[in-house]
Amino acid sequence: MSLDPHPPLRKHPPMPPDIDLRTHIRAIPDFPQPGIVFRDITPLLHEPAAFRAANEQLAEIARSFDATLIAGIEARGFLFGTPVAERLNLPFVPIRKPGKLPADRASVFYELEYGHDSLELHRDPSVDRHRVVIVDDLLATGGTAAAAAQLVEELGGTVAGYAFVIELDALEGRARLDGHSVQALLHY
Amino acid sequence: MSLDPHPPLRKHPPMPPDIDLRTHIRAIPDFPQPGIVFRDITPLLHEPAAFRAANEQLAEIARSFDATLIAGIEARGFLFGTPVAERLNLPFVPIRKPGKLPADRASVFYELEYGHDSLELHRDPSVDRHRVVIVDDLLATGGTAAAAAQLVEELGGTVAGYAFVIELDALEGRARLDGHSVQALLHY
Repeated sequence: MSLDPHPPLRKHPPMPPDIDLRTHIRAIPDFPQPGIVFRDITPLLHEPAAFRAANEQLAEIARSFDATLIAGIEARGFLFGTPVAERLNLPFVPIRKPGKLPADRASVFYELEYGHDSLELHRDPSVDRHRVVIVDDLLATGGTAAAAAQLVEELGGTVAGYAFVIELDALEGRARLDGHSVQALLHY
Repeated sequence: MSLDPHPPLRKHPPMPPDIDLRTHIRAIPDFPQPGIVFRDITPLLHEPAAFRAANEQLAEIARSFDATLIAGIEARGFLFGTPVAERLNLPFVPIRKPGKLPADRASVFYELEYGHDSLELHRDPSVDRHRVVIVDDLLATGGTAAAAAQLVEELGGTVAGYAFVIELDALEGRARLDGHSVQALLHY
């Protein structure tokens, strides 16, 4: 593409072997409701070497899925999504909550434990014919992640896979993701 | 810091002189309400070379302000904030809408044209004694940006400056920012 004479940003320094991402994730009991342990990524964001290590690993996953476009889910998926897209020199699209995207868009409604929610994706700039890797911080029950895939597919993209920072294994979210490839950096 | 033996990520390729960021910002009339022209950054996100150019320029601004920490305002400020923090090898904190941050936090309420809103920031990981550069996509009336500064200062940080992708000059937002340094890549 004429706008892009530069090589992809792959030449980051190698990771030191002693960064344990798990030490940068904080457990917050009873958030957002009693009985839930929230996995908080803000300590990870605050430690540049650890954050870089996480982004490197997510980018490596997206590369292994042959991504041609990165989609990030609002809002924490944005934090990791653009660093991954930059590393792979790929376009990025934001998958957003209702009322945020200003142009022509597709919407999908999905069920939550109590009530429902929805997500939106612009028709242009397009995911059409792209191999899309969906990036988010957390895979829990998989409802949001499945809705994101539905949007991508409705607009002509292929879901090449998912890259999460954290997967909550007991919630079996990946069973809702239609056999798509799923990788996470950390499992709880 | 022992975790961080690597040099900062400053060695990105130089920008070609022919990237005009303005061509990657789309004007959407009558969003979110009649009479408003919304400046949409999603085309910029979709073009890797242009997105990289924007992040380089934002990082250069933050560097010129002697930033020691980058804060991004939910949600579009996250898209640019983490790439800037990575380039400068600095910690990042998310400034979020109410109910999103799980740990002990400060809140600030602020007036909007109709009604009010609020923003929150964790007390830990801390901005205390940091020179904080606040990153967001857009400076409009400045209400959100001023609230973000109030949070940073309440928690012991200094606002070293603001870096925006776009400034809507006619709304005179910078007049609300208490004389803090403000730079934007594009003016409308």
